[in-house]
Amino acid sequence: MRYIDLRSDTVTMPTAEMRKAMFEAEVGDDVYGDDPTINRLEKLAADIVGKEAAMFVASGTMGNQLGVMTHTLRGDEIILGENAHIAVHEVGAAAVLSGVQLRTIKSGDDILYPELVEKAIRSDDIHEPRTGLICLENALANGTVVPLEVMKKVYELAVERGIPVHLDGARLFNAAAALGVTAADIVQYTDSVQFCLSKGLCAPVGSILAGTSAFINRARKNRKLLGGGMRQAGFLAAAGIIALQDMIKRLEKDHENARYLGKRLLEIPGIELNPDKIQINMVFFKLNRPDFDPNLLVSKFFEKGIKINGEEGGLFRFVTNNDVNKQDIDFVIDTMKEILL
Amino acid sequence: MRYIDLRSDTVTMPTAEMRKAMFEAEVGDDVYGDDPTINRLEKLAADIVGKEAAMFVASGTMGNQLGVMTHTLRGDEIILGENAHIAVHEVGAAAVLSGVQLRTIKSGDDILYPELVEKAIRSDDIHEPRTGLICLENALANGTVVPLEVMKKVYELAVERGIPVHLDGARLFNAAAALGVTAADIVQYTDSVQFCLSKGLCAPVGSILAGTSAFINRARKNRKLLGGGMRQAGFLAAAGIIALQDMIKRLEKDHENARYLGKRLLEIPGIELNPDKIQINMVFFKLNRPDFDPNLLVSKFFEKGIKINGEEGGLFRFVTNNDVNKQDIDFVIDTMKEILL
Amino acid sequence: MRYIDLRSDTVTMPTAEMRKAMFEAEVGDDVYGDDPTINRLEKLAADIVGKEAAMFVASGTMGNQLGVMTHTLRGDEIILGENAHIAVHEVGAAAVLSGVQLRTIKSGDDILYPELVEKAIRSDDIHEPRTGLICLENALANGTVVPLEVMKKVYELAVERGIPVHLDGARLFNAAAALGVTAADIVQYTDSVQFCLSKGLCAPVGSILAGTSAFINRARKNRKLLGGGMRQAGFLAAAGIIALQDMIKRLEKDHENARYLGKRLLEIPGIELNPDKIQINMVFFKLNRPDFDPNLLVSKFFEKGIKINGEEGGLFRFVTNNDVNKQDIDFVIDTMKEILL
Amino acid sequence: MRYIDLRSDTVTMPTAEMRKAMFEAEVGDDVYGDDPTINRLEKLAADIVGKEAAMFVASGTMGNQLGVMTHTLRGDEIILGENAHIAVHEVGAAAVLSGVQLRTIKSGDDILYPELVEKAIRSDDIHEPRTGLICLENALANGTVVPLEVMKKVYELAVERGIPVHLDGARLFNAAAALGVTAADIVQYTDSVQFCLSKGLCAPVGSILAGTSAFINRARKNRKLLGGGMRQAGFLAAAGIIALQDMIKRLEKDHENARYLGKRLLEIPGIELNPDKIQINMVFFKLNRPDFDPNLLVSKFFEKGIKINGEEGGLFRFVTNNDVNKQDIDFVIDTMKEILL
Repeated sequence: MRYIDLRSDTVTMPTAEMRKAMFEAEVGDDVYGDDPTINRLEKLAADIVGKEAAMFVASGTMGNQLGVMTHTLRGDEIILGENAHIAVHEVGAAAVLSGVQLRTIKSGDDILYPELVEKAIRSDDIHEPRTGLICLENALANGTVVPLEVMKKVYELAVERGIPVHLDGARLFNAAAALGVTAADIVQYTDSVQFCLSKGLCAPVGSILAGTSAFINRARKNRKLLGGGMRQAGFLAAAGIIALQDMIKRLEKDHENARYLGKRLLEIPGIELNPDKIQINMVFFKLNRPDFDPNLLVSKFFEKGIKINGEEGGLFRFVTNNDVNKQDIDFVIDTMKEILL
Repeated sequence: MRYIDLRSDTVTMPTAEMRKAMFEAEVGDDVYGDDPTINRLEKLAADIVGKEAAMFVASGTMGNQLGVMTHTLRGDEIILGENAHIAVHEVGAAAVLSGVQLRTIKSGDDILYPELVEKAIRSDDIHEPRTGLICLENALANGTVVPLEVMKKVYELAVERGIPVHLDGARLFNAAAALGVTAADIVQYTDSVQFCLSKGLCAPVGSILAGTSAFINRARKNRKLLGGGMRQAGFLAAAGIIALQDMIKRLEKDHENARYLGKRLLEIPGIELNPDKIQINMVFFKLNRPDFDPNLLVSKFFEKGIKINGEEGGLFRFVTNNDVNKQDIDFVIDTMKEILL
Repeated sequence: MRYIDLRSDTVTMPTAEMRKAMFEAEVGDDVYGDDPTINRLEKLAADIVGKEAAMFVASGTMGNQLGVMTHTLRGDEIILGENAHIAVHEVGAAAVLSGVQLRTIKSGDDILYPELVEKAIRSDDIHEPRTGLICLENALANGTVVPLEVMKKVYELAVERGIPVHLDGARLFNAAAALGVTAADIVQYTDSVQFCLSKGLCAPVGSILAGTSAFINRARKNRKLLGGGMRQAGFLAAAGIIALQDMIKRLEKDHENARYLGKRLLEIPGIELNPDKIQINMVFFKLNRPDFDPNLLVSKFFEKGIKINGEEGGLFRFVTNNDVNKQDIDFVIDTMKEILL
Repeated sequence: MRYIDLRSDTVTMPTAEMRKAMFEAEVGDDVYGDDPTINRLEKLAADIVGKEAAMFVASGTMGNQLGVMTHTLRGDEIILGENAHIAVHEVGAAAVLSGVQLRTIKSGDDILYPELVEKAIRSDDIHEPRTGLICLENALANGTVVPLEVMKKVYELAVERGIPVHLDGARLFNAAAALGVTAADIVQYTDSVQFCLSKGLCAPVGSILAGTSAFINRARKNRKLLGGGMRQAGFLAAAGIIALQDMIKRLEKDHENARYLGKRLLEIPGIELNPDKIQINMVFFKLNRPDFDPNLLVSKFFEKGIKINGEEGGLFRFVTNNDVNKQDIDFVIDTMKEILL
């Protein structure tokens, strides 16, 4: 049975072109630097974001954590949003791997405005840890994007204070599409960036960490320490190359579908959402139906061939992706009406 | 020159009785368990807070961090207030020593209400760290106290969820005095507690960590790991015994002086403070005088023999203690009027 | 140009069957448990080594480090050989990831005999860390294998003392072939095992960590923490399944080739090696030729299409693998004679 | 009852002069830098060892661990003797506090000869941790001293390789006395040093960490992180000043007593010791008496008013100190003959 899977864009299947590229991939032992396909991907990835060097990693979490490990010293504090992926969805890794403390900023729309960041930077007082890193996110996990101007100001502040900036760009290309700029335009305001080849770009496995050559060299040793050094990883890189060459341009389609989904959801009484907040491929909404147990939605949908995650913090999140088309969305809406009305 | 020191109660001088007790102390090698004065202090301290066992430590920070180390597993997350001493004034130690992540709660009055704590407890999701500890504070660093009823509810929630509770009771006896209860009444709602023998109790050095015997045994090994095992520590314990036996009852005097100081500060135009928030020995106030650089207050006071800390977060903090009497307060107010008017 | 690559068995190329299986692999999002090929591999791997559960990981280092993280508590000490991979080739990861101290045992043949292990176990003394894990290796990095009887005795000692045992079985199936037993026969004397699908088994990427179900569940969360959770990892698993089903039986061929290589190396004056020490697919030898700079061998060989690593600790190591046949070995010997004679 | 205590020199009682100095000590809040007696001790200590700056710490373990924390980066490896205090008696702290791996060197006489150190330094290989520190000990825990010439050569090697050197000088002044040099003569070949004010120098509590001013500034913040910042610590410093001013010169007496003890022990059949190895205040011997359970010696001695530790690794260790005189030694020998003959 084919499912319509709205749980995340991480569930997208690699395309036929990716399978073919993997089948034919020229590979080698990447720990020896011998894998030509990895080398090609890393060069391409660095170029796309305008950084000196890039490195393939197994996941977005690994890319972010290597960013933290490589920028910070043991005992530093890092500034990030209280809903940042690093704070919420990386199993508390930063304390274990890097020995750093989180200083989480509460912000209504999850954007780290320069004034908030400035207040969070520590003084030299002997009781306080050193502020060792600022971690931004774009696109944000709440489905919106951060304006370039805000990133620029935070970066200027960071440079002035001598604090490096890392960007969790798991959905960097979604952000670029939504902002109408290139990925490099965004990344110019950070010292390092992690972005995913999987998710909307459809590669089966992997992310990229990019920064200066010196930074990536040190991150490479940290990757080995985490057990993230892989042998003939060129197979995965072959799909990653297609992700970067062919799939970026199709993200706007997911965004369009998300907006369409949002519009149609509003047809259903009890659903609350703000269409202006649908900026990438994610639709968050509240199901305001006192007579209906929201937990039932997951199982009822599943019976009809639709996979969704349960409510989190009072909100449902539906994510469009390469395996979901407009007809699928219509089917989702029809089914939802059936269930709820 | 004798200074009136309002920077903190940590600056209090040991009393003559303490010096005498130290001079006469019977000591031994505490690493071998041979120091009779340490043993006596630890027994006394455990009894006072109604716990099975207690251990002398070099500082409040060491007591808190041993609480965190001993309760948690590597990779856990701990819940605490965003202005908690552990989050703000312990140099990021929890990440380094215990490998735990902080989950800081924002609360207007810094009280961790049970609803806020409940929302902060993590689920079993594979992306999330385990919630390993709840850290409370009483008295709070903002100079107010937490009602017993709130602590009771948080503790009931914690017990139900199987999460231990540690209390940073640096000023535990101030809190008890303000609440009109005993220290043991407060500590019954926690699994472990740290309280200071220095500060308002005037001992020169040291704090106590208390809990079950099994907990303290494990904490003792962790203390050795931190290099906190001391040899003939009975000298310090001798003063600590006097702190617990004779000095608790005098804390109310500091509170009275603080209220008096607050009342008199309000005589000065431009000073803003809420007398209801003066619950222990700390007076926080805002100096609303656009024509006067608040940084000058520190140096001007110093010239007159008064030591204060600079503004922090827009507020001054004056702390009363055993070395500050009512006449001193009058002198402070007179001097301040001279400077400001 | 085709190279004869004797640097390691990690350089082996995946077979045509593996490429085909990868091309056709049915995949899903493994973080959601949805990847059928991963699930199939993990079941197969657990069965082969006779453990309850198994998990796919990106590398042998990740498998070993997850073994250490999951067995130990922060502050433990682990016992292992001074030349163990965990001590020498994993970038000091155990201290960073697990906060554990290494207690390395010196043993002439790198075998951890029970008497040596027993002496290395710590007492309850407050100055000493707790012994939290014993790490064995089979086959050893020096190319020999550990007799089952020795492993059995170490395991009995460990069980008696309540200390878990982890096996670094990067070349577990080589060890089994050399000992004439099954992998499960070896692994019965350990609580967890890591073994590689790459190396002699030719899969492009990945290793397996196996143990009890409870252990693997906890290890899965630790894998997420390291950033080792991968999405559509089934592509790699498809090759791993072939590695386990078809490639184990061919390892004896590599061993035979290694013995042949050893025998022929002895034809060359100045080469010292002990044929009895060629027990798996590795040949270690000394080049005793005062007139010849051993560093030259690497470059001279390279010109002739042969890749080797430089001397390490006074020894060369040649490793046979699926991409090296008997004719290749003859060519290596002929070339070496040309260079040296 | 007065005991003759040979367990360690850590059990020595502070002298009457020390008690008096403590009673009269001028103190202040050292966290604010306000304690004049601490300031005086730190200046004196730095001068004695010829370093720019020094800091008072609660114990030798804390001093050593701050040395490790302050010199190294997370993930480094440190080189030290396999019987070094840091490796054996500090509860595995280096892995927890600093995230560093131990590389322990086996050496027959526990001296780290330059050739051994050189072999233990890591290469730049991506699999290996960086060598971040060399830790020496003088005097050694085995009761002997390291010749200056050896320390000089190790230091020259370290400087050449850009690796800092820390000295665990718990018994630095014993080593200086035995070598007939000053403490500064020894310490010139290290970047930092920890030495104890307790032990043979009789202060009740505390050690000194010394190095460059920049190093000590950073160590001060790390001390705060460990909870090692103390308030009116001047009481302890007052005793420490006397330890440094008056007690160093008396260590030779302990050494003389140790040699005398060694000589007299040889009167007893079955006792094996090498008088040449009695270089400071420690006498190690083997009790070769198949008819006598060595564990009984502890309890039998105790009944007669003598405290000793049990056998460790087949050896007894008797330590002379300020509370043990020649008559005591004669009494120990007489009692031992009574027990054993």
